[in-house]
Amino acid sequence: MAEAEGAQLVTAALIVIGDEVLSGRTKDRNIGHIAERLTDVGIDLREVRIVADVEDEIVAAVNALRNRFTYVFTTGGIGPTHDDITADSIARAFGVPIDVDPRARAMLLEYIPEEKLNEARLRMARIPQGATLVANSVSKAPGFRIGNVIVMAGVPRIMQAMLEIVLPDLEKGRPMLSETVLANTGEGDIAAGLAALARKYPEATLGSYPFRDEDNRFKTHLVARSRDRHLLDQVHEELQLLVAPFN
Amino acid sequence: MAEAEGAQLVTAALIVIGDEVLSGRTKDRNIGHIAERLTDVGIDLREVRIVADVEDEIVAAVNALRNRFTYVFTTGGIGPTHDDITADSIARAFGVPIDVDPRARAMLLEYIPEEKLNEARLRMARIPQGATLVANSVSKAPGFRIGNVIVMAGVPRIMQAMLEIVLPDLEKGRPMLSETVLANTGEGDIAAGLAALARKYPEATLGSYPFRDEDNRFKTHLVARSRDRHLLDQVHEELQLLVAPFN
Repeated sequence: MAEAEGAQLVTAALIVIGDEVLSGRTKDRNIGHIAERLTDVGIDLREVRIVADVEDEIVAAVNALRNRFTYVFTTGGIGPTHDDITADSIARAFGVPIDVDPRARAMLLEYIPEEKLNEARLRMARIPQGATLVANSVSKAPGFRIGNVIVMAGVPRIMQAMLEIVLPDLEKGRPMLSETVLANTGEGDIAAGLAALARKYPEATLGSYPFRDEDNRFKTHLVARSRDRHLLDQVHEELQLLVAPFN
Repeated sequence: MAEAEGAQLVTAALIVIGDEVLSGRTKDRNIGHIAERLTDVGIDLREVRIVADVEDEIVAAVNALRNRFTYVFTTGGIGPTHDDITADSIARAFGVPIDVDPRARAMLLEYIPEEKLNEARLRMARIPQGATLVANSVSKAPGFRIGNVIVMAGVPRIMQAMLEIVLPDLEKGRPMLSETVLANTGEGDIAAGLAALARKYPEATLGSYPFRDEDNRFKTHLVARSRDRHLLDQVHEELQLLVAPFN
């Protein structure tokens, strides 16, 4: 996809950490939310990986992705139990020490009475050296940011709150805009016309998403995407002409 | 996680192909289903990647994962439009030619009248050389299998039908079994006991998943997983003892 001149491209990857998603026990609800919010603000989510609670896997994914994208987000694995190994894995990926961070401990104490701040709960204050904390407005245990990697909770409500705290501080590109057109027919009838439009407008992205309506008839959503409002309006108009014979 | 002696370990990765999932426009409904079904039959899903409709990305993901896991599944990108590039990408990953496959063309003709089988729809019959077809009981356009890579549709109903066709022919290991215990308290109160159990039973996997009940109180699901029924029953019993003081 070609970029408008001067437009700054900001990209991201997401690493979802958790055996429970890979086993199917937990249905992930974070990917869709993060994808939508990043798109909204002008950060292109380019890849998602779901990896197991295995330190080597997490380290490998973090190091593979942090060099390729502007930002890497992670969700999951920052709780108090033995299977919460995200913070230690990130420290290893960056080659920095990790220990209980006094700032993070202080945050936990806003929520947890000191006599209940046992060794397990204190694990939630283990933060890699050099990281900045990401406040947790729900249950206090913070996420953190180190380099271009942003580590968030896996519980959707907490993750969402952390994401909103982090987003204002991130670089953003021009948001990707989109327009959707409905074609009352299957993809096969409009594919040739759509391909011709894709060639005519190489700077826009054209996608085609088939579905069946309530009467089981094939229909198609055609989606045009561009960062350029003017170009997008042009392509949108052409798409409307393309589907008119079927609608 | 240690394996019971003689148990065959069968692993898988899943590649979800589609800009629409990365943009947040489409919420993926395939990952959870595939994760559950593979776990059911004794195939361990070890990694999921969501990648864009970009040939280089698809080729890189396929080649990275097919050497590491018993099977690689893909979903999406096998329709008739210009952005459906999965089959061509797989052919390139395997270094084999791709063309319209007469068997696949015959399948399409069961569903599409010959006069409507235009060039675009015929794209759905492009199959890498050496692949076996995976029938599509819903709309006929087949998936395929080449080597250890199984290529399926992205539309959930079609993907699910293809998966059920493919599963009987795959190798399986001993299914991973699980037992869940509810603790009426937060993770921090049971983390130490849980860690001790994890050390005592290194051949089981113990996970801890916090949530809030309808009254906003923290509770925790403790999940034990093992392929060994006897071992799992033992761990299950210990978990029940662990949570008893809180329930």
